[in-house]
Amino acid sequence: MALAYDPLFITSDKTAMDVPSTPPPMNLTQDDLKRIAAYKAVDFVRSGMVLGLGTGSTARHAVDRIGELLRQGKLSDIVGIPTSKKTQEQALSLGIPLSDLDAHPVIDLSIDGADEVDPRLNLVKGRGGSLLREKMIEGASKKFVVIVDESKMVKHIGGSGMALPVEVVPFCWKFTAEKLREVMEGYGGCEAKLRLGGEKGKAFVTDNGNYIVDMYLEKDMGDLWAVSDAILRLPGVVEHGMFLDMASTVIIAGELGVKIKNKHGSCCC
Amino acid sequence: MALAYDPLFITSDKTAMDVPSTPPPMNLTQDDLKRIAAYKAVDFVRSGMVLGLGTGSTARHAVDRIGELLRQGKLSDIVGIPTSKKTQEQALSLGIPLSDLDAHPVIDLSIDGADEVDPRLNLVKGRGGSLLREKMIEGASKKFVVIVDESKMVKHIGGSGMALPVEVVPFCWKFTAEKLREVMEGYGGCEAKLRLGGEKGKAFVTDNGNYIVDMYLEKDMGDLWAVSDAILRLPGVVEHGMFLDMASTVIIAGELGVKIKNKHGSCCC
Repeated sequence: MALAYDPLFITSDKTAMDVPSTPPPMNLTQDDLKRIAAYKAVDFVRSGMVLGLGTGSTARHAVDRIGELLRQGKLSDIVGIPTSKKTQEQALSLGIPLSDLDAHPVIDLSIDGADEVDPRLNLVKGRGGSLLREKMIEGASKKFVVIVDESKMVKHIGGSGMALPVEVVPFCWKFTAEKLREVMEGYGGCEAKLRLGGEKGKAFVTDNGNYIVDMYLEKDMGDLWAVSDAILRLPGVVEHGMFLDMASTVIIAGELGVKIKNKHGSCCC
Repeated sequence: MALAYDPLFITSDKTAMDVPSTPPPMNLTQDDLKRIAAYKAVDFVRSGMVLGLGTGSTARHAVDRIGELLRQGKLSDIVGIPTSKKTQEQALSLGIPLSDLDAHPVIDLSIDGADEVDPRLNLVKGRGGSLLREKMIEGASKKFVVIVDESKMVKHIGGSGMALPVEVVPFCWKFTAEKLREVMEGYGGCEAKLRLGGEKGKAFVTDNGNYIVDMYLEKDMGDLWAVSDAILRLPGVVEHGMFLDMASTVIIAGELGVKIKNKHGSCCC
C-alpha cells in the first residue's frame, strides 16, 4: 500500500534548496533528530520498491521504521538490499525480505546516513566502516536519500575535523597510508592513521576483510574529483569515503525543524 | 660483490629504442627465451640492492638466478621483496633474505614478467593473479625491468586477444563485472568473465582474498589513462592489470636474439 503523504509535496517551490517544513521541536537529543530525519526519509518508500538499506546510527532508525510499516501492513512487497552484515542482521530480525545487487542491479531508493554533507550535497561516509558496500549499492540507486542531524553539515569535506576514511588492503597497509599522506600533500595535507577497534586492540576489519586508514584533513581539498582519482590510483586503495554527486536528497533534522535539500535545487520526487 | 658486466653498456647509442645484442640462438623453446630474458635482467642486480621479485613463469627464472648468484658469492647483501606468496616460498627455498614494503618503501630494482607490452612500454600484468602486489612493489621501484619473450609484444593493450585482468571484491562480483562491461562500452567494448581455478571449479582467489574478472577487449581502447580512471572509479574494483608508464626497461628474448627497450628511448643504467 502506498502512503498518501509525500514529503516532497510540502513545498510547491521546485527550485528551493532549503525547504523548512516541520515546526521546531523542543529539547530533542541528537538521537531524536536522527530518528526524525529517518522517519521523514521512509515517507519516500512505496510498496513494491527495491530498497538500499544503510548502515549506522541514523540509518538504523530508517530500517526499524520500514520493518514497523511492513508489520502494520502499510508497506508490502519490499525487497531490502543491506549495505553491511550488521544491517543484514537487523533487517532479518525485523522480517524485511532481503536480496543483493547481483539479483537487483537497479535499486529504486536507498536511505542512509552520512558523516558529513557539504553545500553541493557531496558526502563523507564510512566512519561506520561500510563505505564500499554503501557506495556500490547507493551508486546503483535511482534515488539516494541521505538522513542527517544538522551537526553533519559542513562548509567543505573534512570540515568537521573528523576522518575521511579510506578502505585499503591489509597487505603493507603502512606503505599505503604513507602514500596517501604523500598524495594529499598536493591537496592541503592530512594525517593518516590506521583505524583500530578489532580484537585486542588490533586493526578494525571491514566486511570485505580490509583495513581502514582514516585521513584527517588539514585544509579544504579543492577539486574533490581530482582528489578522488588521485586516491583511487594508489594500488593498495580499495575505495574512499567521499560520495561525490551521488545524493538525490538530504534530509537534515535540527533543533529548528527539518530541512530538505535536493540535488540541483529541484524536487527529486 | 658487484658484477663487472653491465648489460646496458652493450650499446653506446643512448637514444636507441631497440638494441640488438645477443647473437641469434637456435631451436629455443619459449621457456628458453624466458630464461634468457630473465638472466639478462639479473645482470642489472648489484650487491646491496633491495629487489622486487616478480611472479610468473618468466620471473621465476630471475629469482632462481638471483639465488644461484647469492650461493656462488657473486652477489651479497640482497633484500628481496616478493610480489606473491608463491614467489615468497620460492625465494625462501633459495635462501634469499626477504622483507616487505613497510620496512623498505623504496626499492632499488624490480624484475618481473608481463603478459603484454605495447610500443610505449605500457604493460598488461596479472594473468598469474598477482597484479595488486606487483603494482604496489613495482610502483615503488627506482627501476623496473620487465622480461618477456617476443610473443608478448603487442601493437596495443589487449592486442593479444588474451585477458586484461581486474581484481574485484567478492561481494556482488557479478554486479561489478556488469558495470565493467558497461564502462568499457565507451572504450571499444569487452566481454567480462570471472576467472575460475579455485577448488571444485570455484572462483580463483587472489592473495588478498579477492576475485579476478578477466576483460576480453574487442578493440584498441584508445586513451589508457582515461580507461584506467574509469575502471578504478567503480566501487567494487580493487585494481586492474594495466601498468602504465611504469616499466624502465623491457628485455625481449626472441629467436633472433635479445632486444632491450628503454623508457623514453634513453639508457636507464
